[in-house]
Amino acid sequence: MRPTPRISRFPVPALADLPDDVRARILQVQDKAGFVPNVFLVLAHRPDEFRAFFAYHDALMLKEGGLSTAEREMIVVATSAANQCAYCVIAHGAILRIYAKDPLIADQVAVNHGKADLAPRQRAMLDFALQVALRSGAIGDADFARLAEHGFSDEDAWDIAAIAAFFAMSNRLANMSDMRPNDEFYLMGRTPRPGH
Amino acid sequence: MRPTPRISRFPVPALADLPDDVRARILQVQDKAGFVPNVFLVLAHRPDEFRAFFAYHDALMLKEGGLSTAEREMIVVATSAANQCAYCVIAHGAILRIYAKDPLIADQVAVNHGKADLAPRQRAMLDFALQVALRSGAIGDADFARLAEHGFSDEDAWDIAAIAAFFAMSNRLANMSDMRPNDEFYLMGRTPRPGH
Amino acid sequence: MRPTPRISRFPVPALADLPDDVRARILQVQDKAGFVPNVFLVLAHRPDEFRAFFAYHDALMLKEGGLSTAEREMIVVATSAANQCAYCVIAHGAILRIYAKDPLIADQVAVNHGKADLAPRQRAMLDFALQVALRSGAIGDADFARLAEHGFSDEDAWDIAAIAAFFAMSNRLANMSDMRPNDEFYLMGRTPRPGH
Amino acid sequence: MRPTPRISRFPVPALADLPDDVRARILQVQDKAGFVPNVFLVLAHRPDEFRAFFAYHDALMLKEGGLSTAEREMIVVATSAANQCAYCVIAHGAILRIYAKDPLIADQVAVNHGKADLAPRQRAMLDFALQVALRSGAIGDADFARLAEHGFSDEDAWDIAAIAAFFAMSNRLANMSDMRPNDEFYLMGRTPRPGH
Amino acid sequence: MRPTPRISRFPVPALADLPDDVRARILQVQDKAGFVPNVFLVLAHRPDEFRAFFAYHDALMLKEGGLSTAEREMIVVATSAANQCAYCVIAHGAILRIYAKDPLIADQVAVNHGKADLAPRQRAMLDFALQVALRSGAIGDADFARLAEHGFSDEDAWDIAAIAAFFAMSNRLANMSDMRPNDEFYLMGRTPRPGH
Amino acid sequence: MRPTPRISRFPVPALADLPDDVRARILQVQDKAGFVPNVFLVLAHRPDEFRAFFAYHDALMLKEGGLSTAEREMIVVATSAANQCAYCVIAHGAILRIYAKDPLIADQVAVNHGKADLAPRQRAMLDFALQVALRSGAIGDADFARLAEHGFSDEDAWDIAAIAAFFAMSNRLANMSDMRPNDEFYLMGRTPRPGH
Repeated sequence: MRPTPRISRFPVPALADLPDDVRARILQVQDKAGFVPNVFLVLAHRPDEFRAFFAYHDALMLKEGGLSTAEREMIVVATSAANQCAYCVIAHGAILRIYAKDPLIADQVAVNHGKADLAPRQRAMLDFALQVALRSGAIGDADFARLAEHGFSDEDAWDIAAIAAFFAMSNRLANMSDMRPNDEFYLMGRTPRPGH
Repeated sequence: MRPTPRISRFPVPALADLPDDVRARILQVQDKAGFVPNVFLVLAHRPDEFRAFFAYHDALMLKEGGLSTAEREMIVVATSAANQCAYCVIAHGAILRIYAKDPLIADQVAVNHGKADLAPRQRAMLDFALQVALRSGAIGDADFARLAEHGFSDEDAWDIAAIAAFFAMSNRLANMSDMRPNDEFYLMGRTPRPGH
Repeated sequence: MRPTPRISRFPVPALADLPDDVRARILQVQDKAGFVPNVFLVLAHRPDEFRAFFAYHDALMLKEGGLSTAEREMIVVATSAANQCAYCVIAHGAILRIYAKDPLIADQVAVNHGKADLAPRQRAMLDFALQVALRSGAIGDADFARLAEHGFSDEDAWDIAAIAAFFAMSNRLANMSDMRPNDEFYLMGRTPRPGH
Repeated sequence: MRPTPRISRFPVPALADLPDDVRARILQVQDKAGFVPNVFLVLAHRPDEFRAFFAYHDALMLKEGGLSTAEREMIVVATSAANQCAYCVIAHGAILRIYAKDPLIADQVAVNHGKADLAPRQRAMLDFALQVALRSGAIGDADFARLAEHGFSDEDAWDIAAIAAFFAMSNRLANMSDMRPNDEFYLMGRTPRPGH
Repeated sequence: MRPTPRISRFPVPALADLPDDVRARILQVQDKAGFVPNVFLVLAHRPDEFRAFFAYHDALMLKEGGLSTAEREMIVVATSAANQCAYCVIAHGAILRIYAKDPLIADQVAVNHGKADLAPRQRAMLDFALQVALRSGAIGDADFARLAEHGFSDEDAWDIAAIAAFFAMSNRLANMSDMRPNDEFYLMGRTPRPGH
Repeated sequence: MRPTPRISRFPVPALADLPDDVRARILQVQDKAGFVPNVFLVLAHRPDEFRAFFAYHDALMLKEGGLSTAEREMIVVATSAANQCAYCVIAHGAILRIYAKDPLIADQVAVNHGKADLAPRQRAMLDFALQVALRSGAIGDADFARLAEHGFSDEDAWDIAAIAAFFAMSNRLANMSDMRPNDEFYLMGRTPRPGH
């Protein structure tokens, strides 16, 4: 039997030692997912940062808006791959497969979004997300105009950019802490598409 | 007289239209600084994101720890310059000059931290911060060892990385929104060093 | 039901129209794998190149030597990810999972080999493979010395480099032709490790 | 009191030891500026190179032509920032503020000329200057055509390119010699714009 | 007299020790060229790879098609220079001079194909070849459309890409093995163009 | 007969129309070399810049010092290749072959100085020259220490850096003006080494 691998370079607190609100949030996730994604345990090392991180996450990923939940996860997977963040590619790849009901899309987007099974709108969305991730200093009117051609409003552009920006932070925290993706993520959502 | 330039590509809410807590935070800053830094007005366009952003900012920049307030601002200036973020370089350059009581340091760090008037410890700190900003996928044990040689604990390393990561996000939001630095920042803290 | 997606930007020949030896090779693969990996169908558009391609492939991937079959596939996955080649990452990721009897390793290596569950020897092997893939002009004695520290002979170094070089070619052919990975690859080898 | 910092990695000659023409040039600058910019003292270590350097500088920066003096300094600041040259960004930033009568423009151009308070003509000028600085091998007819759209003649294009090229040299000399910007530059030209 | 320099980091087999078909191929080349290009001797260290390599080479370089022999060699020289491969630039530079009956073209293409004495069609061909060499993940419909504007069919595009891909491999093998270009190549084809 | 190709994107003055000193310098070169290298004609379009350019050139390339004339030309060829400057690689490649009395060295240095027939001292010299050409902002004490290990004084380091810096300028001027190398350069110095 394989020894349990380290999930962080930093100490991981026991649930019992955590502030009540942090522990409650973790138990709630565990209830829903059936396991605790390691990002919760790794960031619980710093409760104040934990609170702000997940408040920000929820403000971007759970809000209403012009992007579907699957599209938001596409942004996470594409930009996290560009940042070589194993945790976010593997964990959010699982979520993308589930939201998109598509067992293939996450691996495609992670390797090369330009070759993935995407609508032109989604390709434009990811082009912009990668510009935010990699060359944000060069963003200009032309980028917003290209998004508008694909039906994205300026508010949608903010959403795309803010998700790419939030995971620019998240990827760096995961890379710094050696955050390990849970084994559960690898297989989630990989059952073949119905009717295929 | 120059017309008031646009501070954001997005609508900027009137103070009166903001949720009470957001407005209170803005008024508090205005009281302390004598003006409202534009980042507050630009991000107030999205109150939930505003709240999470500043909660995160405060958790990193106001906490106790092994980094001085000036050192934290050095990280912001160096990484924001690497990301070509005018708002953060100019605004945090002002704060750095004030905290460091040094009218020269911010411009030096923004152009080339390797040539700036820094202690070896600070140079190592900024080397790591730029690694987080630009090549976080390659962070490894050797980076933590190098920080330790300069007296930085692992908790200090988290602080450095988390600040660089938070401003990786912040820089991208500012670049996306065309966030404009207030004119006030340019001159702040530029009076000569006493005894110089 | 999803329409059958295009597997190549170029015409794909019918089996019946192929030269006997090319058809025989394809039928043999189909027998063994249960399906025809698309690389065979896409390259069959050019029978002479097909023959040389697979002769070269077999000379590198089936030969005896100091690298295990799983290690060879690691080289393919790591360098193909660096070249953003969806076909090779996804198809050889499946083969890697099977040879390594490890459902996690391929995704880890594809995103960031420096954070993957690898022995130091394998990490050094992939460092060299990526040098071949991305900066071969700078290869020098120091690289061979580093491999030797991990027990790799000069012949092993040739093997690593030749595999990385062959897939430098293969990745470019796949990217040029829009070669599509078969749906079958995504799920292969993903069943949990026994005893885990 | 802070010790006088080193202005060069190389010996700095005493004025008395310099050839007459070199000393005369330095005294003339001191008369005009009120201090001796360090570039004169650092390069005086090599009188022949000093003479050629300033002859070249004057041929480009003092000549008549389609570029204003402020525009020439914008080119210096933008390209020197791309080359991480502290001396040139800080010294020529001061001169730019004075010529442009604008206390804000230098810092904006140094961080990201695409976000600076510039006319479209000036943005096109700096786009070309940065192409010369960073990717001169790819210059072609299209670049001259784009300049022409903004009213720049071919002679203006030469001026832009020659200034960017001269400071490509100057930046490398300053970076090699650890040339230190005089403290005086940081505050020059920073008084608020009249009527603002 | 200069000592004979090493032509490979690996052992170079004696002709007598080689399999008959490999030796026959080498003797045939020697007959034609008057000397044995070192690539034959260096790769003969691995006879199976030797056979596949030259079978592939011949399938691409000797086949009929829309590209002239000189154009194929242009692709080799331009992409090999981008990969810093001395063997391929110098050996195929010689062949290019001979096929093109032009003593100048090889050096021009090696340094900067955008400034070389080329027809627009050839420039477009090399633009695509370098995209294959350096950024193949971004190849898309627009690239094929641009080639079509210059009269290149999709089959021609495959030829260009396959040659660039094959030499992506070849360059990496040469760089890895320190393959040395024969002295004979440097002067071949350098006699002035008749009538010039 | 091939039409005379354009040697500059800008007007090339007739000798008769030039200031006396400029014309004298050109005639002197023609006397010595047997032809007028195009750089003289192209830059004569701007006599003041011409004068400063060649004064600077002579101050660096004709001075006494620790670098041989061949070593100075190696610096020019290696850095000009990195800048994709056809004029300087081809013209100074010729001069390098002549000064080094070596018909092979220039092509080797242009493609990959790390694989060229160089002494370790010369390799270290070119490593530093390329650092000046490509990453001068990162130059530091360690670079001077590495040069010292190979016997280079600080004054030699200045020479290396100043030559690399001067040709950083020169390469950009040549690339901007489409400066064409004279046909004569390609064959100069290519006769076999005596005794070889």
